[in-house]
Amino acid sequence: MSVTDSSPEESQKASRQKGLVVINTGHGKGKTTAALGLLLRAWGHDMKVIMLQFVKKSTANFGEHRAARKIGIDIIPQGAGFTFGGKNEAENKRLSIEQWNRAKELIDSGTYQVVALDEFTYPLKYGWLPVTEVIDVLGKRPQNVHVVITGRDAPQELIDFADLVTEMKEIKHPLRKGIKAQKGIEF
Amino acid sequence: MSVTDSSPEESQKASRQKGLVVINTGHGKGKTTAALGLLLRAWGHDMKVIMLQFVKKSTANFGEHRAARKIGIDIIPQGAGFTFGGKNEAENKRLSIEQWNRAKELIDSGTYQVVALDEFTYPLKYGWLPVTEVIDVLGKRPQNVHVVITGRDAPQELIDFADLVTEMKEIKHPLRKGIKAQKGIEF
Repeated sequence: MSVTDSSPEESQKASRQKGLVVINTGHGKGKTTAALGLLLRAWGHDMKVIMLQFVKKSTANFGEHRAARKIGIDIIPQGAGFTFGGKNEAENKRLSIEQWNRAKELIDSGTYQVVALDEFTYPLKYGWLPVTEVIDVLGKRPQNVHVVITGRDAPQELIDFADLVTEMKEIKHPLRKGIKAQKGIEF
Repeated sequence: MSVTDSSPEESQKASRQKGLVVINTGHGKGKTTAALGLLLRAWGHDMKVIMLQFVKKSTANFGEHRAARKIGIDIIPQGAGFTFGGKNEAENKRLSIEQWNRAKELIDSGTYQVVALDEFTYPLKYGWLPVTEVIDVLGKRPQNVHVVITGRDAPQELIDFADLVTEMKEIKHPLRKGIKAQKGIEF
């Protein structure tokens, strides 16, 4: 007779409204995908949403970019790809700083009710951006702005600051069985 | 200098095409949300996608339902809500069997390239549907059909059968801080 899950029916009864800082971290799949689902859901409620992608190449044109274009949501990738070290890392750092400056403006403006910072943990992990500044910006943001952060190895300070943190844990991955990444599923 | 994540750029180089069975389980947030993101991504690639929701009330009209209507994706809830036991459980069982019959037809037909069965672990967990039959249907499905299953406590036999399994693990939840579920974020 007990409720075994936090069903939406139940959750709606709770009583305080505020923008959340949501983190999807861990080494499993579904971090970016869940952020996309969240944007879609918020967009379903006529909220204004945007995703800024770090590290992902500016030329990226995966399913999410195509879908976003089709429905008029902005997903803006700006990075040099997932190779770290050397010249590529310097480029990733430069592009991440630019992207973060854009993110700060967007968050501060309050124009968007959901701002997703995809793969944002990498610039923090590699020290391209100071975590303290990020927390400072998040702490001072307009009250109604939700910020969703994805990526592996979220820094502990950020986890401490966040409201909702989920670890996506890999239990089983098809690449281990030699099955290629599938269009529409993983990209 | 190493690649620290399975980036889409890398994954696209792999070489075998096949429909996957994907499971999002665990007690954290993001299971349904990641399934939604996956549908959106596949839809971005012009794939035909659908979500059948178990247990969730047929009157459910959350962000995902609104968004789906806006873009023409079918999300069909059919359940009696997340209260288990008694009369409500009998109703959930009846509705789950009906929904599963619909799911079997959809999967067998090959009309949809992605069929998501949301909260599908509950009918299995409570014994309303036999896991063996489910695995049998999945095993015989057309080769290009991806099936995405969400819900807590996925049965081990199903995990053993699946290709990609992720556990969403709760690290931190705002309800613990007395913050209500936020529109656009959780529903």
